[in-house]
Amino acid sequence: MAEIILHEVGPRDGLQMERGGVPLEVKESWIRRVMASGVDIVQVGSFVHPDRVPQMADTDELFRRLGAEKRAAVTLSGLVLNEKGLERGLACGVEMFCMGASASDTHSRRNSGMGTDEALRHIIAAARRAVDAGRKVQVSVQSAFGCGFEGRVPESRVLDMVRAYRDAGLTNVSLADTAGHADPEQVERLFGSVRALDAGIMCTCHFHNTYGLGMVNIFAALRAGVRTVETSFAGLGGCPFTKVAAGNVATEDFVHALQREGKRTDVNLATLIGVARDVAAHFGRDMQGFVYRTGPIPTGAAE
Amino acid sequence: MAEIILHEVGPRDGLQMERGGVPLEVKESWIRRVMASGVDIVQVGSFVHPDRVPQMADTDELFRRLGAEKRAAVTLSGLVLNEKGLERGLACGVEMFCMGASASDTHSRRNSGMGTDEALRHIIAAARRAVDAGRKVQVSVQSAFGCGFEGRVPESRVLDMVRAYRDAGLTNVSLADTAGHADPEQVERLFGSVRALDAGIMCTCHFHNTYGLGMVNIFAALRAGVRTVETSFAGLGGCPFTKVAAGNVATEDFVHALQREGKRTDVNLATLIGVARDVAAHFGRDMQGFVYRTGPIPTGAAE
Repeated sequence: MAEIILHEVGPRDGLQMERGGVPLEVKESWIRRVMASGVDIVQVGSFVHPDRVPQMADTDELFRRLGAEKRAAVTLSGLVLNEKGLERGLACGVEMFCMGASASDTHSRRNSGMGTDEALRHIIAAARRAVDAGRKVQVSVQSAFGCGFEGRVPESRVLDMVRAYRDAGLTNVSLADTAGHADPEQVERLFGSVRALDAGIMCTCHFHNTYGLGMVNIFAALRAGVRTVETSFAGLGGCPFTKVAAGNVATEDFVHALQREGKRTDVNLATLIGVARDVAAHFGRDMQGFVYRTGPIPTGAAE
Repeated sequence: MAEIILHEVGPRDGLQMERGGVPLEVKESWIRRVMASGVDIVQVGSFVHPDRVPQMADTDELFRRLGAEKRAAVTLSGLVLNEKGLERGLACGVEMFCMGASASDTHSRRNSGMGTDEALRHIIAAARRAVDAGRKVQVSVQSAFGCGFEGRVPESRVLDMVRAYRDAGLTNVSLADTAGHADPEQVERLFGSVRALDAGIMCTCHFHNTYGLGMVNIFAALRAGVRTVETSFAGLGGCPFTKVAAGNVATEDFVHALQREGKRTDVNLATLIGVARDVAAHFGRDMQGFVYRTGPIPTGAAE
């Protein structure tokens, strides 16, 4: 298996759901430590109207602070939802733009005010602009494995969207399980179909752990040729005030599992665990991750 | 893939760790509902000295009550640790005896007062007696994937124990990840080696979810040809008073995942979720399972 690329999305996908937000300095310190741990990409935040997601109002300022003195090996990504966000991201030094459209028409309308087809055209146009500006771009299909509103999402619709991205020269593609509906057979089948469509597509996976299948879905995706995995420190994500908690797989849990198998031993697991513990302490509640509580498996006498 | 056999071990592996215990009538009602749900085997309890594990003191009485009027399709299993336990189990109608020895010498001595080799000889002798008495028998290798005291456990030691069981005519073999150290590559490799040793061995897996890998390890085991999976309602297991919580994978989470893939749709998931909710309510704390909180994935308009 090719080396696995780690994309930490906690500062965006995790913190956007936390009411009250996190002070800029605290957020910056968490991100700096994650950057230093050896993960490959860190999603600093999203560019969305501050009235809609006030937790992300400091994204531009974070990019300015972090970009000034960052380690070359780590890439800073930002999520944009539209042209306005793209403008902000281009202005503050985003290295990798993440953007996408939902395979569920209902989810797409609620999220962007546009149906899937229209949203896809807008995203492709914005992505092309970012490419032309010399930035890295990852495009995504949200609700690729099912939708809380629509239920099952036809795989043909997901593949049509991937084909549209590919035809526009956008070959870094993420399939996101927004609702947490994926099962491992489906994951292997769908990513396999994407790879069969065009082996040149670089696949990324993003799973929510709503029904306890996040980790098994990641390993299914890796078997199907996915190279980049998005995870969140402490397993953050999902709103603590709703019935269905829907965090991501915890970055430190995934790195711990990989290192048990001799992979990505270059990453400093202790640093990631330290961040997750500080995140848990900051919010004052138990997080969904395991290893931040247990520590790594102890090396016994026989090791 | 052959149909998967479900072995519910919550009444034993889960409840043995709960200080205070559960009243006999409550336990009996949970077990009866699990029996009615359509799972294949239910582990009612263990036969161990009541001074050592008072939570299991009512195991004989439970077998007498449940055996009298049980549905033929479900098998009632009981865990025994020694000859004395075997006598009790034979007297009260245990249909399937589960017993095992630890691949970790240190763990074996702490658990049974004997090293691995001596414990293995005793277990094989007891297992043969149970077979000769016309009962089903499952033998296990505990700490097969690592040990909290010894660290890594050599795979050759596990395979030697499996070979000793097989040579004694004991071909229903469980590998138990007592400490939760297993990773999916290791699981696939070790069960693959067992199957390569003798394809006639019927493999069972038992994983603790200490580091968040329980579900992914189950799916790895299934890929390697394992047919029987041990899980625990609500994900019960592990002592709530220690730092490292070490529950099993929740039965209802696993059945939910299987049914998403069209498997074991004969099992009544709603019944299992109901039991898990009552278990959580009884103990008055959050359990490790997911689906008992969220309910199953809703079927949307497109389904």
